[in-house]
Amino acid sequence: MFQLTIHANAGRARRGVLAMRAGNIDTPTFMPVGTQASVKSLTPEQVRQTGAQIILNNAYHLYLRPGVELIERLGGLHRFQAWDGGILTDSGGYQIFSLSPLHKVSEEGLAFKSHIDGSAHFMTPEKAVEVQQRLGADIFMSFDQPIPWGATHEQTAEATQRTHRWALRGKSAWRPETGQVLFGIVQGGFAEELRRESAETLVATDFPGYSIGGLSVGEPKEVMWEMLDLVTALLPQEKPRYLMGVGTPTDLVRGVRLGVDMFDCVLPTRMGRNGTAFTWEGRLNLRNAQYEMDAGPLDPHCSCAVCRSFSRAYLRHLLKAGEILAIHSLSYHNVAFYEQLMSRMREQITAGTFTEWAEQFVRDYRD
Amino acid sequence: MFQLTIHANAGRARRGVLAMRAGNIDTPTFMPVGTQASVKSLTPEQVRQTGAQIILNNAYHLYLRPGVELIERLGGLHRFQAWDGGILTDSGGYQIFSLSPLHKVSEEGLAFKSHIDGSAHFMTPEKAVEVQQRLGADIFMSFDQPIPWGATHEQTAEATQRTHRWALRGKSAWRPETGQVLFGIVQGGFAEELRRESAETLVATDFPGYSIGGLSVGEPKEVMWEMLDLVTALLPQEKPRYLMGVGTPTDLVRGVRLGVDMFDCVLPTRMGRNGTAFTWEGRLNLRNAQYEMDAGPLDPHCSCAVCRSFSRAYLRHLLKAGEILAIHSLSYHNVAFYEQLMSRMREQITAGTFTEWAEQFVRDYRD
Repeated sequence: MFQLTIHANAGRARRGVLAMRAGNIDTPTFMPVGTQASVKSLTPEQVRQTGAQIILNNAYHLYLRPGVELIERLGGLHRFQAWDGGILTDSGGYQIFSLSPLHKVSEEGLAFKSHIDGSAHFMTPEKAVEVQQRLGADIFMSFDQPIPWGATHEQTAEATQRTHRWALRGKSAWRPETGQVLFGIVQGGFAEELRRESAETLVATDFPGYSIGGLSVGEPKEVMWEMLDLVTALLPQEKPRYLMGVGTPTDLVRGVRLGVDMFDCVLPTRMGRNGTAFTWEGRLNLRNAQYEMDAGPLDPHCSCAVCRSFSRAYLRHLLKAGEILAIHSLSYHNVAFYEQLMSRMREQITAGTFTEWAEQFVRDYRD
Repeated sequence: MFQLTIHANAGRARRGVLAMRAGNIDTPTFMPVGTQASVKSLTPEQVRQTGAQIILNNAYHLYLRPGVELIERLGGLHRFQAWDGGILTDSGGYQIFSLSPLHKVSEEGLAFKSHIDGSAHFMTPEKAVEVQQRLGADIFMSFDQPIPWGATHEQTAEATQRTHRWALRGKSAWRPETGQVLFGIVQGGFAEELRRESAETLVATDFPGYSIGGLSVGEPKEVMWEMLDLVTALLPQEKPRYLMGVGTPTDLVRGVRLGVDMFDCVLPTRMGRNGTAFTWEGRLNLRNAQYEMDAGPLDPHCSCAVCRSFSRAYLRHLLKAGEILAIHSLSYHNVAFYEQLMSRMREQITAGTFTEWAEQFVRDYRD
């Protein structure tokens, strides 16, 4: 069972429900990132309280540590991390390229060394699917070859076409009878015709959903929106679209406006660890002296557990004193803010007011 | 209102209820340590869920950062850290001696430099009381001069007698009409007659409760129990006794057996941060390879949120992966274990079975 039902549209924006084996997910949705099977500093109960319905884990990290066999023996990712919501895994291609300096690409797959202990590994598109399926993800990704900003047209074409061949090989290793589903990843770098070719090829291969990869890798924002605009127009209406690794609050609004249903990003937890809060009034750097005596909550328009309990002055004190509770509180609030933003967008789409609302948000919000 | 009611005894052990302005505290009680107005890595809600009814804050740390004025303006310690249970503050003498290398004692008070920024400060017994009262503690401590293990008899006598004069001066600065109460601290080092003199002098001065300081500072455990035995026998039955900074699970049981009502210790949170759990079967070092595939909870006899959700294998993975959730989970479980231990002791005293139970626990438990 894997079915997206669209309940309302606003231009290309869609408000829907994604029925999957882990339950129903309201879309558009934001997935907090739990790279190593933990959304940093939050308990699963707290992740649920932020409003999140589905999280992201990283197959590359978990394959290396603690390993597939251990997680499988412990009952799979859901039981392992005590999370009964949805779980999407990234296949790990991106992480191998960014974390393993000595990786080597061939048609067969990717040779790389562990960033943890230097051990040698070889990952193929078939094995990447098998790993993710064994981990117990509800949704998992084809193995792709990322393309850096600045790659030549030839490099982009070669990697994109290999990604297509790998997508086919991955699909052949997928066992759909488990109810776990495989997404294809659209690549194509920043060449319009390659993006188009990639979207069309993957749609022809027919996946339950489509990821849009290779964006937000250093390119100017406007280039990203052009590519996304082009790709989402080519994807089938009835399948979910997932924009990988994006982004800031305005990025999410712009993504939804272009028809994206799913997002993930480390920003809310990473910025939280750095002492920055996202609020409805923009970013807030809690280290600023102006908050020293501030008795108000991080965000007066937020009803999360942190904003109900703690003042900016207290959180600033915790941050300066090096207390873990500061990191936890900011991470929690930021994830809750992202979830509230998604909820707000869903409401606006249903109410028929999304287009104007999004216009204003993108214009005014400073992130 | 500050009243200890004893409901049951077992030898010198007492099970009671301490009625105070922040509510009723079941005694004997364990106070988790929130040095800088945060029990490390736990939210106030989680602290409450462990079973804790009263926590400890440190006046020295909070006086230096964020400062008394800020906390007072933010509504006092309870509102500042969003904790509606009891709060006891330590006066800071011990921290000045251990953290400020250039401190200088005179009859007037203690000159010291901040361990944070090197700024110069002067603390008197009157000011220590005023600081703690302004912070908003429910129970606070006299300013005392700690005595290290290995001090001469003359040094011990001089510091002990100064502590008595400081206790009197502190009492004169206390404003009991606020409902906040001041405890005197029994010192006397490891000299029987000085411990006796200290207890008798402070009892004659008449405080709402008595702290027993200067133990667990490097002396052999048996010396500590001799001193504690001597002191608690001299303290009035109707007043609470607080053994400062102690200890391991068996220390708590031995302390209760000698008539102690209140404890605090950093051990459960500090050991948690190091990867060690306290369980009913003893200490457990989660880094040990034997737990790698262990699907069981930290402690099969514990019903805390961590033991209900996570396996040892998962927590060990988090610990090895450097995830904050490992530190949080172990700290939470350890505090919950300490609170369960106190609860167990209260039940045993009420049931009339404490003496045998404690005998066995002290003999068998390995901490």
